[in-house]
Amino acid sequence: MKQSQLFTRTQKDIGEEEKSLNASLLIRAGFIDKLAAGVYSYLPLGLRVLKKIENIIREEMNAIDAQELLMPALSPKQNWEATKRWDGLDVLFKLQGHDNKEYALGATHEEVVTPLMKRFVFSYKDLPQYVYQIQFKFRNEARAKSGLLRGREFLMKDLYSFHTSEKDLEDYYQKATEAYYKVCARLGLKDLTYLTYASGGTFSKYSHEFQTKIENGEDLIYICPKCNLAYNKEIIDEIEQCAECKTSKNQFKEETASEIGNIFKLGSKYSNSFGFKYVDDQGQEQDIIMGCYGIGVSRAMGILVEVFNDDKGIIWPISVAPYHLHLISLGNEDKIIKEVNSIYKQLVKDGYEVLYDDRDESAGIKLNDSDLIGLPYRLVVSEKTLKEDSVEIKKRSEKDFQLIKIKDLSKYLQGEIKLV
Amino acid sequence: MKQSQLFTRTQKDIGEEEKSLNASLLIRAGFIDKLAAGVYSYLPLGLRVLKKIENIIREEMNAIDAQELLMPALSPKQNWEATKRWDGLDVLFKLQGHDNKEYALGATHEEVVTPLMKRFVFSYKDLPQYVYQIQFKFRNEARAKSGLLRGREFLMKDLYSFHTSEKDLEDYYQKATEAYYKVCARLGLKDLTYLTYASGGTFSKYSHEFQTKIENGEDLIYICPKCNLAYNKEIIDEIEQCAECKTSKNQFKEETASEIGNIFKLGSKYSNSFGFKYVDDQGQEQDIIMGCYGIGVSRAMGILVEVFNDDKGIIWPISVAPYHLHLISLGNEDKIIKEVNSIYKQLVKDGYEVLYDDRDESAGIKLNDSDLIGLPYRLVVSEKTLKEDSVEIKKRSEKDFQLIKIKDLSKYLQGEIKLV
Repeated sequence: MKQSQLFTRTQKDIGEEEKSLNASLLIRAGFIDKLAAGVYSYLPLGLRVLKKIENIIREEMNAIDAQELLMPALSPKQNWEATKRWDGLDVLFKLQGHDNKEYALGATHEEVVTPLMKRFVFSYKDLPQYVYQIQFKFRNEARAKSGLLRGREFLMKDLYSFHTSEKDLEDYYQKATEAYYKVCARLGLKDLTYLTYASGGTFSKYSHEFQTKIENGEDLIYICPKCNLAYNKEIIDEIEQCAECKTSKNQFKEETASEIGNIFKLGSKYSNSFGFKYVDDQGQEQDIIMGCYGIGVSRAMGILVEVFNDDKGIIWPISVAPYHLHLISLGNEDKIIKEVNSIYKQLVKDGYEVLYDDRDESAGIKLNDSDLIGLPYRLVVSEKTLKEDSVEIKKRSEKDFQLIKIKDLSKYLQGEIKLV
Repeated sequence: MKQSQLFTRTQKDIGEEEKSLNASLLIRAGFIDKLAAGVYSYLPLGLRVLKKIENIIREEMNAIDAQELLMPALSPKQNWEATKRWDGLDVLFKLQGHDNKEYALGATHEEVVTPLMKRFVFSYKDLPQYVYQIQFKFRNEARAKSGLLRGREFLMKDLYSFHTSEKDLEDYYQKATEAYYKVCARLGLKDLTYLTYASGGTFSKYSHEFQTKIENGEDLIYICPKCNLAYNKEIIDEIEQCAECKTSKNQFKEETASEIGNIFKLGSKYSNSFGFKYVDDQGQEQDIIMGCYGIGVSRAMGILVEVFNDDKGIIWPISVAPYHLHLISLGNEDKIIKEVNSIYKQLVKDGYEVLYDDRDESAGIKLNDSDLIGLPYRLVVSEKTLKEDSVEIKKRSEKDFQLIKIKDLSKYLQGEIKLV
């Protein structure tokens, strides 16, 4: 992509209104645009990041045999009444249709997926089932001041599992936990993300959150220094020692964090609300046991920015960067432009995703913009580098740069970037 | 995909409530599920179709240099008041947040895209711009009885263009028209789709719809037999003769149709509502001229089913079929199962998308399900075909089948299906 063609541009001054670090950086760098508090547009660069995060999650959900579907946001009042959440769930956005029917906007989808699966699952032979979607959720939040960390409209992956027994749920719950670790690892967040005990509702004593340690996190977690399990604020008062290694809670370390995902055993609360049962091998009707598993897709984008940045801008991990390489031409001489054009073509041909800053701007503006946008590799071509038949390469995450001969560029990048 | 793993199943009886042909077939075949009138879930097979349609449209929009972004559904009241559509647009779903602010759900996105682009476009050098999204729209329809042809929540591609002059808009309008023809051609709908004059609003006498002729269409169009241009009901009374070839309107043929897309010249109605101007090369402030270009993505799926079906089920064009091939094993003998498993593996390895009916069901059920689901090619393997070392191949759109030797299968399919 030639940067001169991109309609977005970096912005120096975005006003005082946006206080969150993630949204400020993303707006300044041209990844998102703020329409209202907690409501953002994803601009071309931001949409590329969002889709990459989405695809990583999709691959890991497919790998644990979950089937993708897509449910609507509009959902009838009666579905929410069946589970007593029409009045019970404060964050529901409600609206009325010309047909005089009332709807809620999906803040979560147990009320939709449960009656849906009831139409396809009858016997123990039809179980277990795992389905998921990647879809925009709506939550009527009183306050939405944390950028992508708390959206009124936000992209989420929600998976629901259906089982004949608690044992079967437990097995899948473990599998999902592993899948979540893999997602965090691919996003570059594994070392900062803690499996965190949280309140479990009626069916299970605990649920589990995946909390990523960030300075501006809205949550407080307490990390056991020995086994790295964490406990959230909700339940810390009930805890005396680590459930795993018995370390005393006095030694836990308090940290601010943001919840990138959660997994929850639902029991048969929702299946029973919709009279969704299965027939066992003895012909007896039995309760269906459910689990649910969420990951905040757009929130993950916010968390990544909160984690990977410096005073100059964002530092994207290569797995989700909108482009691998930021190719920058310095100087307007024909021979420079001709050479950079040819390098650009070769890089694209080699399969790299390249943002090519071909704009007629000063070196200062181009290099500052490049730091702000935060692609993993910066390749500068100038009169100076061309004297050495070279490109100056710098990783966004490192200070040093090096000159690489143009003829060696392909080989160098092959050693750096694994294309899929 | 092994069909035994798919959680959906075909349904014989879906009740009387769903009257539309497209939704009835899609529900019976397990592509969609109805949550409320005009509100559907996309099940794994349906989601695959939707994504294929989406990708065809995306490729053609990218080919006319449009940049993809993604805007939210929630949009503040003041944006709709700026264009006088808060009260003027009857299909707006409205809702209130805990912040006491009022929002509309996006029924169209001029109110969001215009102020968004205003933040990036200042001078004639920044124009033209073309941006699009593929996103769920919400419309508070009084009646929604046509399945995917009229949704309360539906997937749409909406593109917006911004120009310095009417001439420049006109050029892009022509380019978009060509792109729309290409989309229709790739969907297999070109011969049935008519460029249709429709009412144009304040800026232009006419807008243009792409109307696909179907029996259950909600629209009436009048087709000029000579040049194949059409006129919609809205404007037919104003017309005496074909605008193109001057054929008298007495010779026009009335047809029912459904609007797969439309293109519309907006002038500066919306840009002026938001004070969005540009500075020309003389330093003078000038009006920005806009165009908008919609395609109903989920509606296209409904139209395809309305067009391509017979009394046994759906007949998907290969460009959007959820899978290329329906591989069906008949018989439970180990040697049959072993042989079909090996054919399945080879086909997948060759790059084909295969739905493999490995279920323990009767030939009747399997063949009927296959016709209902409607994949382009059916490959049956049975004791009979194996005696000839063959697979029985039948196109869904044709009556005849043929035996192809298993060793010749790859070569045969290479001649039939062009993999991308």
